[in-house]
Amino acid sequence: MTDVYAVIIAGGGGTRLWPATREHLPKQLQPLIFEQPLIAETVGRLNATYDFDRMLIVTAQKYAKSIEQMLPSIPPENIICEPVGRNTAAAIALAAFRICEENEQGIFSVFPADHVVQNTDVFNRTLAFAHELARHHRVVDIGIPPSHPETGYGYIEIGEEIERRNNICAYRMRAFVEKPDVESARGYLEAGRYVWNSGMFVWRASEFLLALAEHLPETHTALQGALRHKDWDQLVEAYHRIPDVSVDYGIMEKVSDVVVISADVGWRDIGDWAALYDLMEHDEQNNAVDGPNVSLDTEGCLLMAPRKLVATIGLRNLVVVDTEDVLLVMTRDRAQDVKKILELLKERGDSEHL
Amino acid sequence: MTDVYAVIIAGGGGTRLWPATREHLPKQLQPLIFEQPLIAETVGRLNATYDFDRMLIVTAQKYAKSIEQMLPSIPPENIICEPVGRNTAAAIALAAFRICEENEQGIFSVFPADHVVQNTDVFNRTLAFAHELARHHRVVDIGIPPSHPETGYGYIEIGEEIERRNNICAYRMRAFVEKPDVESARGYLEAGRYVWNSGMFVWRASEFLLALAEHLPETHTALQGALRHKDWDQLVEAYHRIPDVSVDYGIMEKVSDVVVISADVGWRDIGDWAALYDLMEHDEQNNAVDGPNVSLDTEGCLLMAPRKLVATIGLRNLVVVDTEDVLLVMTRDRAQDVKKILELLKERGDSEHL
Repeated sequence: MTDVYAVIIAGGGGTRLWPATREHLPKQLQPLIFEQPLIAETVGRLNATYDFDRMLIVTAQKYAKSIEQMLPSIPPENIICEPVGRNTAAAIALAAFRICEENEQGIFSVFPADHVVQNTDVFNRTLAFAHELARHHRVVDIGIPPSHPETGYGYIEIGEEIERRNNICAYRMRAFVEKPDVESARGYLEAGRYVWNSGMFVWRASEFLLALAEHLPETHTALQGALRHKDWDQLVEAYHRIPDVSVDYGIMEKVSDVVVISADVGWRDIGDWAALYDLMEHDEQNNAVDGPNVSLDTEGCLLMAPRKLVATIGLRNLVVVDTEDVLLVMTRDRAQDVKKILELLKERGDSEHL
Repeated sequence: MTDVYAVIIAGGGGTRLWPATREHLPKQLQPLIFEQPLIAETVGRLNATYDFDRMLIVTAQKYAKSIEQMLPSIPPENIICEPVGRNTAAAIALAAFRICEENEQGIFSVFPADHVVQNTDVFNRTLAFAHELARHHRVVDIGIPPSHPETGYGYIEIGEEIERRNNICAYRMRAFVEKPDVESARGYLEAGRYVWNSGMFVWRASEFLLALAEHLPETHTALQGALRHKDWDQLVEAYHRIPDVSVDYGIMEKVSDVVVISADVGWRDIGDWAALYDLMEHDEQNNAVDGPNVSLDTEGCLLMAPRKLVATIGLRNLVVVDTEDVLLVMTRDRAQDVKKILELLKERGDSEHL
């Protein structure tokens, strides 16, 4: 399909996966437990549906060179740099302007660069269905039926079913729901009317820009001006004026006729080490191990030290992550607190390890 | 004193301090938490009492080159190699034959190469006292008044006081006591008649060889024959015939007129990581840390990773030891079980990490 584009959002982040992720090496540029860096996994998976020259990657300037080297199949001009991070609304807007210029009828799907999708067959069928729906509806959002009361994801409340194909259902969107506490998450799971918000969705580019003009007019005006002159300094200046707002909050919540597909594509956003542990294969003692290992009486641990032998005795539910210059050891239930370690390092002025 | 020698026993070992100690790098060649390797600390400390050319180091051939390089002040011919390890009786006998040949009136003190002595003033006065006593008694053993019910050391039961100088007392020896269980150790501490067996003692060389001939005649004959011909192959052959027996068990326990000095010289044998933790300085959370560190809610831990930043969250009483190719993480109360890890590695045929 010559009018279908993939927009891959690769802005950075993943600080709770420190010390594997670093300021100069965000999550999407890391393989973690996979063969390739997450962004290369994403591009490879999407190539079943999108031509390489119709994939656009929006990223920070500091990552552009690495991404170009990691992804030789992507034309370098398809790697779009942002001067600073201004959240997803601006990033997607940059890509939408480019697509509209190339093809007024263009449709694009948005994908975070650093998410995991394990059921590729279902995924590919879901995308085909989504593209069709996008020809008659303004936005098609891809939701994931929840498997457990996850508090790390946003949810979408769905309404009546509007279409079904190959056992994949599409519903009217009712409401976006922020990341819940565990009580609410349990409620959503039981109710059966909520899906995880995967951050993947499909728009017609021209429609997206209309919605941008209506709901984030400053962003529309600033970016349109800067892009018309193809001037980097003007773009820098524009980025410093536009608001920092997500596409969900800034646009999606405000438009009508949003359709939600609920499809079990084996999706995960690996937010922290505990989430990675959940995703990995476990041995008989419930340990998830990457690298050579010798253990005595050790249970429920994530042991990541691909480059050295890890010996453990008497451990329960710990996370051990070894990198060249940092070693992290913590209890699995404190995985969220990695952010606090980074704050402590910032306070000390230790930029070397951030 | 031209007739006083130091014999430093540097045969190897320290397997419970793996992975800092390795087969090719035993405890005495490691600095652990000190400025220099333990053997260099020992030699430096002893130089207040003994000339460098009257220090003899008995070691395994495989460590001789490293020791020679570490200790340029020691004449290379004073580094005596054993073909294989045959425990302390044989090692000390080798040195005693050498000393007797050089000086028939020679007195020697024996010191393990890998022990810690922190009160050097008391230590030096104790040695001076011991040398004097050795002119009138067959053996002078240096005991340490116990500070806690240690189960990792052997004990000596002492009898009546026979002499006192500068608040350092000498007693008749009653009995050697094997490493006790914790109940017995508590009893010894309360009784006040027991001291730790430090493995340091003083003999006249000729007397030692007489006792050797009487109590370990095979060892005496085999070594005397091999040394007379100064032939390495003959020494190898002799070593394969002689029994593997400690000087305590093979000789000391069997001779009369043993004197024990009880002196608080700040002595420790660092047997395992828990013992090293006890010896180290603790911060306000009772952590003993060597290397850069950032910790949240972490208590009672030993963190040794001099070459990298260690970040910890929510840990209690753990030991973390990072080396170039091995990372050890265990609970402190399992410090003895490091030996089991080494057994597992041996079973697997993993000689690289031993």
